[in-house]
This record gives sequence, C-alpha cells and structure tokens, in this order.
Amino acid sequence: MTTRDTRSSAAIGSHKAYLTGSRPDLRVPVRRVHLTDGNAVTLYDTSGPATDPAVGTDVRRGLPSLRHRWIAERRADGTGDVTQLAYARRGVITPEMEFVAIRENRPPEFVRDEIAAGRAVLPVNVNHPESEPMIIGKNFLVKVNANIGNSAVTSSVEEEVEKMTWATRWGADTVMDLSTGRDIHTTREWVLRNSPVPIGTVPLYQALEKTGGRAEELSWEIYRDTVVEQAEQGVDYMTVHAGVLLRYIPLTARRKTGIVSRGGSIMAAWCLAHHEESFLYTHFAELCEIFRAYDITFSLGDGLRPGSVADANDEAQFAELRTLAELNRMAKVHDVQTMIEGPGHVPMDKIKENVDLQQELCEEAPFYTLGPLTTDVAPGYDHITSGIGAAMIAWWGTAMLCYVTPKEHLGLPDRDDVKTGVITYKIAAHAADLAKGHPGAQVRDDALSDARFEFRWEDQFNLALDPDTARAYHDATLPAEPAKTAHFCSMCGPKFCSMKISREVMEKYGPDGADASLSEAEIEAGMLAKSREFAEAGRRVYLPLTD
Amino acid sequence: MTTRDTRSSAAIGSHKAYLTGSRPDLRVPVRRVHLTDGNAVTLYDTSGPATDPAVGTDVRRGLPSLRHRWIAERRADGTGDVTQLAYARRGVITPEMEFVAIRENRPPEFVRDEIAAGRAVLPVNVNHPESEPMIIGKNFLVKVNANIGNSAVTSSVEEEVEKMTWATRWGADTVMDLSTGRDIHTTREWVLRNSPVPIGTVPLYQALEKTGGRAEELSWEIYRDTVVEQAEQGVDYMTVHAGVLLRYIPLTARRKTGIVSRGGSIMAAWCLAHHEESFLYTHFAELCEIFRAYDITFSLGDGLRPGSVADANDEAQFAELRTLAELNRMAKVHDVQTMIEGPGHVPMDKIKENVDLQQELCEEAPFYTLGPLTTDVAPGYDHITSGIGAAMIAWWGTAMLCYVTPKEHLGLPDRDDVKTGVITYKIAAHAADLAKGHPGAQVRDDALSDARFEFRWEDQFNLALDPDTARAYHDATLPAEPAKTAHFCSMCGPKFCSMKISREVMEKYGPDGADASLSEAEIEAGMLAKSREFAEAGRRVYLPLTD
Repeated sequence: MTTRDTRSSAAIGSHKAYLTGSRPDLRVPVRRVHLTDGNAVTLYDTSGPATDPAVGTDVRRGLPSLRHRWIAERRADGTGDVTQLAYARRGVITPEMEFVAIRENRPPEFVRDEIAAGRAVLPVNVNHPESEPMIIGKNFLVKVNANIGNSAVTSSVEEEVEKMTWATRWGADTVMDLSTGRDIHTTREWVLRNSPVPIGTVPLYQALEKTGGRAEELSWEIYRDTVVEQAEQGVDYMTVHAGVLLRYIPLTARRKTGIVSRGGSIMAAWCLAHHEESFLYTHFAELCEIFRAYDITFSLGDGLRPGSVADANDEAQFAELRTLAELNRMAKVHDVQTMIEGPGHVPMDKIKENVDLQQELCEEAPFYTLGPLTTDVAPGYDHITSGIGAAMIAWWGTAMLCYVTPKEHLGLPDRDDVKTGVITYKIAAHAADLAKGHPGAQVRDDALSDARFEFRWEDQFNLALDPDTARAYHDATLPAEPAKTAHFCSMCGPKFCSMKISREVMEKYGPDGADASLSEAEIEAGMLAKSREFAEAGRRVYLPLTD
Repeated sequence: MTTRDTRSSAAIGSHKAYLTGSRPDLRVPVRRVHLTDGNAVTLYDTSGPATDPAVGTDVRRGLPSLRHRWIAERRADGTGDVTQLAYARRGVITPEMEFVAIRENRPPEFVRDEIAAGRAVLPVNVNHPESEPMIIGKNFLVKVNANIGNSAVTSSVEEEVEKMTWATRWGADTVMDLSTGRDIHTTREWVLRNSPVPIGTVPLYQALEKTGGRAEELSWEIYRDTVVEQAEQGVDYMTVHAGVLLRYIPLTARRKTGIVSRGGSIMAAWCLAHHEESFLYTHFAELCEIFRAYDITFSLGDGLRPGSVADANDEAQFAELRTLAELNRMAKVHDVQTMIEGPGHVPMDKIKENVDLQQELCEEAPFYTLGPLTTDVAPGYDHITSGIGAAMIAWWGTAMLCYVTPKEHLGLPDRDDVKTGVITYKIAAHAADLAKGHPGAQVRDDALSDARFEFRWEDQFNLALDPDTARAYHDATLPAEPAKTAHFCSMCGPKFCSMKISREVMEKYGPDGADASLSEAEIEAGMLAKSREFAEAGRRVYLPLTD
C-alpha cells in the first residue's frame, strides 16, 4: 500500500517538538510556531510521527509502538483491572495520565481525579500501543472526532488510511472508522497500525455484514465475536446502541424523520423482528467484561437521535437518554470508561436542554455530540449548520464533537471534505474553549491578533488553523512577495489604513507609550499638542507607499 | 456594460410568483417550489426582476421603477415628512408597509406599529424607486447584508454590479457598496439602478477620496455634500460613525488591535489632527434633516468595535454604544429611521451582553451586527467563525447580520466568496428564526425533512438554500440519474437503510398507521404479531435492489 504525500505547509513556519515527562520514553508532541518577532507559540499537536521528519513513517510498518513498555509494565504488575478508570480509582497516575497532563498543561492529579470521577475518559486499548494518549472531558480542551469509512458503494482501504492521516494532520483528536462494505477488517487493521489518535468503531456494522445485511439474523454471539475481533485489533472506543429498547420504538412512529441512526435502526429492526429486548441491553454486563479486559471505552450511542429539527428533544430521544444513564452507571461498576453520544438535529433554543439533561442524568460523563445541526435547509453546508450548534453545545459542556462534512446527507466525504469538516469543528471547539475560559486557550488568538495588527503576514498564516488556505487567499488579491511584508492589506489598500492610526494612538497612550501614566486632563492636553504637531508638519495619515 | 449570466438553478424546480395587495401595482415577489408529491412551498425571494423570465432585465436600463407611483402620490399629498417613520407615527400604512406585511405574513398594522416604535426600519430612499420594500426588526425575519465594493487595489464597476445581482440571487436582503477607489460615483449609480434591495453606503469613504486620502482635510462641508450626492442617487441607508468621540480615542490605546473600523479610524485621525469633537457628532442634527428629506435610514456605525476577542466588550466599545443611543434618540426626534451597528470579534460568552445592552440603551432600535467572529485563529474561514456568532446574536435579538466572507482579513471577496458568505449568513439567520419560533420559519425545514425521509432527492435539492451545490455533491458519489429516484443514499448504500426501518414503524404506529389509536398494551401485542409475521415471511429489512 502506498499513500500520497500528506505533508502540507501546516508544518512550514513551525516544527515538531516534544515535552519530556518523568521518564525518558514519555515524550509529548507539540507544534512550535516561530514568529518573526522572535517569540514562539506552542500548540497542541494531533498529527503524530507523520509530521516529524526525524521519524520515517512507513504505512506498511505502521507507527512506532509508543505505549508498548507502559502496557507491558502494568501487565507484569498484575494488580488487577487494566482500565485507566480502575487505576485512577486506585489513586495511580499512569504514564498515559501524565502524558495528557503535560499535553493539556494540567496537574497529573487533576487528570487522575477527573477520570476517577467519570467526568473524563482516556481511550487507550491495550492493543493500540501506537496511539498518543488524549483525554475527553468537559474540564479539558474540547475534542473533535472525524469519521472515515468506506461503504458498500464507494472507496478503498488505501483511501481510508489516507483520510485518517489527513484528518489528524488538521487536528482530529480521534477518528471513527465507520466502514460498512467489504474489507472492513483489513481497513481497520491498516487504520489502527497507522493512527496516532484513538480509533472508534460501531461493531454492529461489521456484525451486520456477517449476516449478509439481515438485521433479524443478528445475535448476541455474532455481535460479541465481532467486538472481540475488533478489541484484539486495538479499537479504543466503540459505539454501542444499547439504549434502543423495544418499548421506545413506537415513540418514533409519529416523528417526521423516524429513526435516522444506522445503528439505532438496525437494533430497532432486530427488536421488531424478534419482539425481544435488545441483546445489547440484555447482555450489557458481559459486554462490560470484554471492554474491561482491553480498556475499551464505551461510547453509548443515541440510536434514537432526532433527524430533523422537528423531532428534537422528543420523548423517544430523552427516553433513550435515561437508559444510557443507567448503562453508564453499570459500566462504571465494571471499571469501564464511558461517554454518551448526543444529537443530531436541534434548533438553537433546544440545545442547552440536551447537554444539561445529559450531564444531570449521566453524572457528568463526557458528552459526545454530532453537531447538532441547527436547521435542515442547507444540504451541502451542513458543516456550517452543525458547526453553529457544535460551538454552542461545547461551550455548555460537551466534551467531544463529532464532525459533519459538507457532504452530510448527500454522499461520502472526500479528502477536501474531511479537511473542511475538521477545520470547521476545530473552530467550534476552540470557540468553546475561549467561551469556557479554558486556561491558555486565548494565547493563539492573541498571538494571531498581534501579528495581524503588526502586519506580520507570515506569522498570521503560520498561526492560522489552515495556513495553506490563509496564504492562498491573501495571494489571490495581492500575489507579489513584497505584499506579505507590506504594512497594508487589500481591503483598504495602501492609501489609508486603520491599523496605522491605531498604532499612532497606541504609541502615544498605550502601556509602553510616551504618555502611559498621564491623567485624563494630561491626555487631553497631549492630544492638543499632537494636533498642533500634525498641522505644523503637514503630516498625512496614510503610509505614502504609492505616491 | 455587460454582465455575465447570473441565473442559476436556484430557479430550477421553482418559479417566481407574486402576491397582490390592496392595489394592482402592489405585487410581492415570492419563489414557489413545486414538489414531486404535488405540494408547493412558498419562499421569501430577494432576487428581484432578474429571476422573472417575464421581465427582461437590461443592466443599461436598470430595473423597473416599482415604487415610483407610491412616492409621487405621497409627494402630491404634501402632508409633511416623507419618512416611513413619520407616516407610521401619523398612523398611516404606506404601500411599502403593506408590501412588507404581505412579504412577512404579518398584519399591516403590526408593521406600522413596529416602525412607529422604532423597533423596525424600512429603508427606502425616495430616489431608489426600483427597490422592493423590506423590513429590518427583531420581530421580523432576520435579514442578511452583503458587502461589495472595489478598492484602490482591485476590481471594476462591472464586477461590483454583478456581485450585487449575484448576492441578491442567493438571498442577500440588503447590499452595502463599500467602494473606495476610483469610479465610486459611477459604481454606485449602476448598483442602485439595478438593485431590487436597499443599498447602504459609508459616505465617509467617498469624502476621504475627495481629500486625496487626507483625513485631517475632511470637513463637515465636504462630508455633507457627499451625503447629498449619494442621497440624490438613492442610497437607502448610510453608515455614520458619529459615536467616535474625541475623549474615547485614548480608551483604545491599551487594546490589542486598536481601532479596526475604517470609518472609526478616519474619524479618530480627524479628531486627533484637529483636537476637536467629531464633525459628525457636532453636525448630527443637520445630518438628520438631510436624511429626513430623502427618507434615508441611519446605520449608526460602531467605529470602536473590537478587532480581536481580546478587545471585546471593553470600555471604548460600550462608551461609543452609549453615544449611539443618544444619537438614536435625536434621529427619532427628526422622524429619521435608525439602526445601530455592532461588533465585530466577540467570544461566545460575551455575545449576549452586547445585544442586551444595545437593546436596553437604544430603546430596541434594530441591531445590525458584523458577525461577530467568535475566535481569531481561522483566517480563511471567518465566514464560519462569524457565522457561529451571527446565529447566536440574531437568536438573542439582532435584526440584521452583515455577512463575512472567507476572504475576510485576507483580500476582497470574489463571486464565489460572495455566494459562500451569503449562504452561510442565510443559515445563521434562518437558524435564529427557528430558535426565535418565528411563525412559519420551520415550514421549509419540515418540507425538506419530509423530502429527505421519502427519498425525494429532487425536492431536497430544490428546497435547499443552494440547490446547485446539493445536487453536485450528491452526483459526485452517485452520479447516475436513477440514483436521484433511488430509495437509498451513498452513506449506507442499498443493502441497509435506516429510513426504510423507520417507515415500517411509521406505517404501523404513525398518525395514519394501521394501529394509530392503539393503547401501549395493544401496541406491544401488535409488535409481537409483527415479529411473527417477519419470521414467517422470512422478510429482510433492506430493499433488495442489488441481490
């Protein structure tokens, strides 16, 4: 297998660096942007070894086995459960916890306590040693998931691996492989061996392939074997639609768009066919035991999520949520980490109710939401309809956002769609981090605003979420190289520039200005003097670059 | 002058229609989408005669003079002020008010009362008879403004006229011509004569051209003459940065990004140079008299709006807002319609404070905001960073949103950027209409969701904000014509489809279903029967299209 070169100028103007922890094999990757004013800004980096020139990556070999020793040491230890939740509850700070503590600039004890309380999860299957630990919880940076996956209709294994690498390059914190066609096992194997981020799946999709697409032929045994197969490969978290109970199905009958979750509808079909309670629900305790053995994290799926704003916050949705809360408690009894999935399509005025109810019922377990889309009228732009809802729900407490691409409802995302989806959701997540007052979140905004104010174009580009696009858009209007150092931009042109005026005010009255310590009366007097100076010198208020 | 064909398939699957009011020349345009299920959905339409095949448009001739007779009749009437505010206060319902009443599906008396109270504006210069009346106020549909305008650096008159037509095609409710280079007067003339929507300007930009770019050489007289020149041409609303007072300028000195408003910085430069109070402020009453004579609407500019999230909601911004509130009261004394401009760059947690304070201080005068951008880190994607803030601020009471294009901070928008900006802001505005529970807003969402659920692909496309893009994305994955009538989509493929399951549930238990009136116990029993039927018939839960 070969992949196209996925390097981009996201890496130009910056370089990969590592922060070392309490042991030499604990090296936390960061991206360091070097500014032309001599400063540097350190950014969270999800891109893994692929962006480190010192590590030659080879798709056929997979990534280095970063966590191999930590896992082996714990196995030798033999003190009991291997889940991060179990360790946290025993008061142990694992290397994984220390890793995310450094990554998030929080004390290791805080990380441990958030996991122990079930407010955060650290998804790390013992069989996915390649992954760089990351944490999902409302008291940490908001995370973004990107979905990939071939379907019965299109796309190849190779494409999916490349999409995964591409998604993490632009900032995806986790990737879900939702493949449904042939080669599910092989696709997942390649994705896992090359992924620096946790990988999630929906095992039900593969189980359904095993029955030739016949939902009623599914069984606990087929499902269980599929889960074990994927657990052995190293899947870090799995969506389980165990909250779609038989008695909830008629609640969807009066909906505008019924059941839109694929997993939800598969389970509904099974329940209808057998008139039995969902095997995912009745066998949940056994499932917990499998998850515990590998430290797989539950992502309890919202199979009855609304598929239109008309269906938002209805009885079917909230009935399922109450069941997910019950399952969350059961998972915790088994020391299994758990997060809860959320909607879907929700108008803005109904978003907060979702996250508040989930947090209350599920004892603050991390909420993991798809969007939500705030209107149904813009197919082709659902990254935007949902980006609005995603930013809001994350501000109010959602821990991880599942991206939506422009192709949602219309087709499978290609490489460009994946990038657009990831960048849109990085914006939503970061806007939420700012609104939550997350420590340090504003450093990047401030650095970029400083660069903008000082016309340091290259620094603006390098600090941007997408340096390539920012640079290309600038060059489309003012392509000449000197324009990148010019003290003006194409909006006002060289003859008049608002930034210039502002700088004059700032140089006079700002913190480092000539008159920073003056009283208001003195400022008034100073302004009068400045006024005279202007008149006498015949100065102009623009930069005389062109005349 | 020639323009490229700006027709698009926004008009395919729909046709232009008119709702007639109390007189035959009062014809309100709508777009009627004909669905394949025999129903039709009627949509608000801003595109003017350009999308009516019965009206041949010729850029050189301009649009028909729709309001000419109404204006002439009122002049003959001679009862006093010609502003819509003056009429509303006298209890008169003008044809313009009736027009917007039909357009918004509200009683004409309600329209009149909202204008009389200053809670809404209806910008209609007596010299712009081509425009189709529209209303801006929080109790009406949220409106979107698109900025066009050449600069000293790039673009031509022709391009700007085409951008205006293109912007209204996609739903822009007003257009601001922010030209700053040569040909300002000519560009504006062509734009006005061809615009079916109100046109706004910032007269200060042209005044500055007259002084060769020297802000200190501006004067009330130069400015006044420019306003009269533009008033004569028919500009419907004008941004006036009269709230940038001398004493507020030092408040910006400690900001991260100083003064970023072009108009604000021009006035700051003038104040600094002369050490005098702004001539816009000291001559405001005279300006009101000019505005009253033409029924021009004030858009009181926020010259000290924040240019970075770091500067949001600071003393400079709110000091200016208090002055704008004072000017709003003065304008009302002169019977001049007024709206208030707002930020800018504001993190999500500080947005509501802006609109609440504006509404309180300015006696509910319409708020007209630029975004706000909720983070500074994504140049190239500021339609999205700001679309998030725009949706939220509109939900909370902003009446009109000024769009931001992907080129913001980087360059001037081209045709594609204009479309992306308009569509993004139509999404934000519509999401807000839904969240506010605006009557009838959800009709389009519901119709599109119905079409989606029933796999009526063509109806989905035709109801979409951008039918072209929705259709193109669908075809990219499943290009064959039969796929547009197929009962599946590329996400799940033909072998398993969640919609199919949902429809089975709905056919059984839905409002028109076989068992719609059953009790819960009966439903349980029915599900058991259905289960047996499934087993006996050996039915599969997918549509057997491929095997």
